[in-house]
Amino acid sequence: MNILNSINESPLFKIANPKSIALFGASNNITSMGSIMLSSLLSIGYEGTIYPVHLKEETVQDIKAYKSVLDLPETPDLSIIVLPTNIVCKTMDQCGRKGIKHAVVVSGGFKEVGTQGKDMETELIQIAKKYGIRFLGPNCLGIANPHQKLNPTPFSYEGLPGCIGMASQSGSFVTQMFDYLNRLGLGFSTAFSVGNEANIDIIDCMKYLGACPNTKVISMYIEGIKHGKAFVETARAIIPHKPIVALYVGGSEAGRQAGFSHTGAMAGPDRLYDGIFRQSGVIRAQSITELFDFSWALSSQPRSIGRKVIVQTNSGGPGATAADAIGREGMELSPLSQKTRDKLAPFIPHTGSIKNPIDITFSRNQMDFYTNIPEILLKEENADMLMIYFLAPTNMIKQMMIKMGVPKNELNKKLDEIVHKNSDAFMAMLDNHKKPVIGYTYNSIQEHFIRALIDRGIPIFPDPKRAAKAMGAVIQYGQMSNKTQ
Amino acid sequence: MNILNSINESPLFKIANPKSIALFGASNNITSMGSIMLSSLLSIGYEGTIYPVHLKEETVQDIKAYKSVLDLPETPDLSIIVLPTNIVCKTMDQCGRKGIKHAVVVSGGFKEVGTQGKDMETELIQIAKKYGIRFLGPNCLGIANPHQKLNPTPFSYEGLPGCIGMASQSGSFVTQMFDYLNRLGLGFSTAFSVGNEANIDIIDCMKYLGACPNTKVISMYIEGIKHGKAFVETARAIIPHKPIVALYVGGSEAGRQAGFSHTGAMAGPDRLYDGIFRQSGVIRAQSITELFDFSWALSSQPRSIGRKVIVQTNSGGPGATAADAIGREGMELSPLSQKTRDKLAPFIPHTGSIKNPIDITFSRNQMDFYTNIPEILLKEENADMLMIYFLAPTNMIKQMMIKMGVPKNELNKKLDEIVHKNSDAFMAMLDNHKKPVIGYTYNSIQEHFIRALIDRGIPIFPDPKRAAKAMGAVIQYGQMSNKTQ
Repeated sequence: MNILNSINESPLFKIANPKSIALFGASNNITSMGSIMLSSLLSIGYEGTIYPVHLKEETVQDIKAYKSVLDLPETPDLSIIVLPTNIVCKTMDQCGRKGIKHAVVVSGGFKEVGTQGKDMETELIQIAKKYGIRFLGPNCLGIANPHQKLNPTPFSYEGLPGCIGMASQSGSFVTQMFDYLNRLGLGFSTAFSVGNEANIDIIDCMKYLGACPNTKVISMYIEGIKHGKAFVETARAIIPHKPIVALYVGGSEAGRQAGFSHTGAMAGPDRLYDGIFRQSGVIRAQSITELFDFSWALSSQPRSIGRKVIVQTNSGGPGATAADAIGREGMELSPLSQKTRDKLAPFIPHTGSIKNPIDITFSRNQMDFYTNIPEILLKEENADMLMIYFLAPTNMIKQMMIKMGVPKNELNKKLDEIVHKNSDAFMAMLDNHKKPVIGYTYNSIQEHFIRALIDRGIPIFPDPKRAAKAMGAVIQYGQMSNKTQ
Repeated sequence: MNILNSINESPLFKIANPKSIALFGASNNITSMGSIMLSSLLSIGYEGTIYPVHLKEETVQDIKAYKSVLDLPETPDLSIIVLPTNIVCKTMDQCGRKGIKHAVVVSGGFKEVGTQGKDMETELIQIAKKYGIRFLGPNCLGIANPHQKLNPTPFSYEGLPGCIGMASQSGSFVTQMFDYLNRLGLGFSTAFSVGNEANIDIIDCMKYLGACPNTKVISMYIEGIKHGKAFVETARAIIPHKPIVALYVGGSEAGRQAGFSHTGAMAGPDRLYDGIFRQSGVIRAQSITELFDFSWALSSQPRSIGRKVIVQTNSGGPGATAADAIGREGMELSPLSQKTRDKLAPFIPHTGSIKNPIDITFSRNQMDFYTNIPEILLKEENADMLMIYFLAPTNMIKQMMIKMGVPKNELNKKLDEIVHKNSDAFMAMLDNHKKPVIGYTYNSIQEHFIRALIDRGIPIFPDPKRAAKAMGAVIQYGQMSNKTQ
């Protein structure tokens, strides 16, 4: 099997878990890229040793600086190079002389800008080879491993460490996703921006993430794959253990052009990549939104291969849009057994519906919506999954509480109580079942109640279409992991 | 032409613009539907007269109540009925005797629940006919006309009055969209929940909205159309004046089932509705998200028929995802003329790209991003539209300001200044051009800077795929309005 037994075997281990870092390019000019990266590393609370290397400064952002890497009191695990293109090779050579074996080259201006850059990249590769250095980049934004409080990238890490392992041919889809994922209650386990892949490539990252115990799902952003066979073999070996989702943008003419000027990646036609993904068992996403939607569902939901879904709602229209989305994504609404209908009847008013979608309307106890009703639906033997519509705008709950006589100064406390009581009850109920449960809403997913549910581990999508597509990804993985096992 | 010369001719005029309302079903039990609707009407600041009709109470929510509609001191423009099903017909009869000519029947339990309900609905129709009453419903959630401070629905209106005219076969897609639209900086001009369409139907609503001066785009949620020919004729007459977007959910088997138990609408196959929409010039949306995305772009952007797009970005990956989305939605990246490239060169660093997508990277003055660069791109004769990536997380702007020495107590004020200066400059620059400009971001669209731009009238979508689809809708309308004119 072409995967690692342990992440320690990976050339990326020291890059993602360094105990000490030599940093080239940080200064006291706080707007330079290197300085911003140092700030991010400090603000996440990196606990290893940082050695800024700077020709002139005694200290950089209050950290003792060194004129040359050769002056460092130890050989650091990693060097990060954020210097002008023309001095990168020389710097790499000095790192080699110091005995450093791992590097991240952030600097751009190599293969992606044309012939002259390509020659410099070749030189860089040769220097690394000479000293046995393994490196990420050039033209990348580095790594983030929030579990190790490591984030030498231009963006502050936001939110908690998570379980999404990212390997990306765009640095933006590492750094600019910190806040994006945080809004979904998600986070990276470890994320790699691979840049031009002059030495370490995206397949090495996939292997690392396959072995990484913090990673539940691997997400990839791809502009072009160089080694198709190795990609397929590695992915196939990982799939039985964890799902892989990939966004490939090089398949349209416009996407191909854009990718080429970005990282110099050679893209191929869509059908070629469809074939690669299909053979690999990799689930293909069509946008960044889908990439992380699928990752969300796959990292939080049990495996499933069945296509029969029950929709639970309290409004007809949202029930119908969910049903429609389910139908269009190749799933179906389960007919309910008589037993289930009998059990439901006491909870549903006559203006509601005990046909699937189950529409309880507004008339009854909302607590039933979070416990008794989904409990009955999850026991239906004829169904594989549950999709639930959540409608819980904070304003409306507060207005209702005011009308019911809750004093204004107790409002937030009481709201908290209601939210936590209901969401705890809901999650406890889910614990007894092993079917995928996915939510959707037209509220902001930052609404208090919705967010409380999300933070407890249920994905709630801002549209049933997105929820249905994510369910589709769960089924696809269920089938693929069966096949490749 | 099968459209109205003026909205005053419409049976919906008094329903959407009543000077006085008789309200049946509101009480001092503040959790009943009628009471909640009264609260919403009061909280938006309705300026007409409200006459609660209640058998027992002297006052309802501090408003003088009447035992019978026959006791009212005047004949109100509108009655709103939120009563148990079995007394709706009797109430409608009394309204008729009082001389009331317009009604909204919110009560459910009619055609949508089976034979007995169907008989009651027939009776209701006959009573209305006898007195010449025109009514919305039954089984609807009423109307919202925020321009007239009218919102007798179960949800408080949030945000400002807007320019989206809604006709919906689901009440949820009126009421539950108040907050949804507000988050996009949008709002309803007037929105109708049509319910079972026993008297006034969705085509009447379309006619009203076609004539409504506050409405720039008509949005429709459809589970089934009864009168296909009238729909086509009416839509065709409106399209040259304003765009219509429709979401139809009955075309999949699952959607059909769900719609039937919801409003009893008879759905038809997808291809039939595709035909109806194509003949009508109506743009079809595939989800609620698309319905309002398209409405957003169509209500804010000039008409265009060209498919050549320029992408402006400061990050390669987001540029590539936009390019890919544009390609997949049937548009293309414009090659840039030498003239444009020459003008751009001084603004773009060597690590950036002056090929389309234009990638200015991080290295230069961000103000150029909002003025000089888009100004050059909008003058490119070989391009029809501009798509811009916005990256402006508040946290990062603040961190940068702190590092530049802005005192913490001036941070918010200075941030405001920067945001307003840049967004004003950007919008002023756009004013000189007549090409569609659509934004996208992976930030929250509630981030200060993004929201400032949105509030000034530029749509910014949370994914380039959504932006590209919305651009597609603008082109589709450009072509259709040319054809039907």
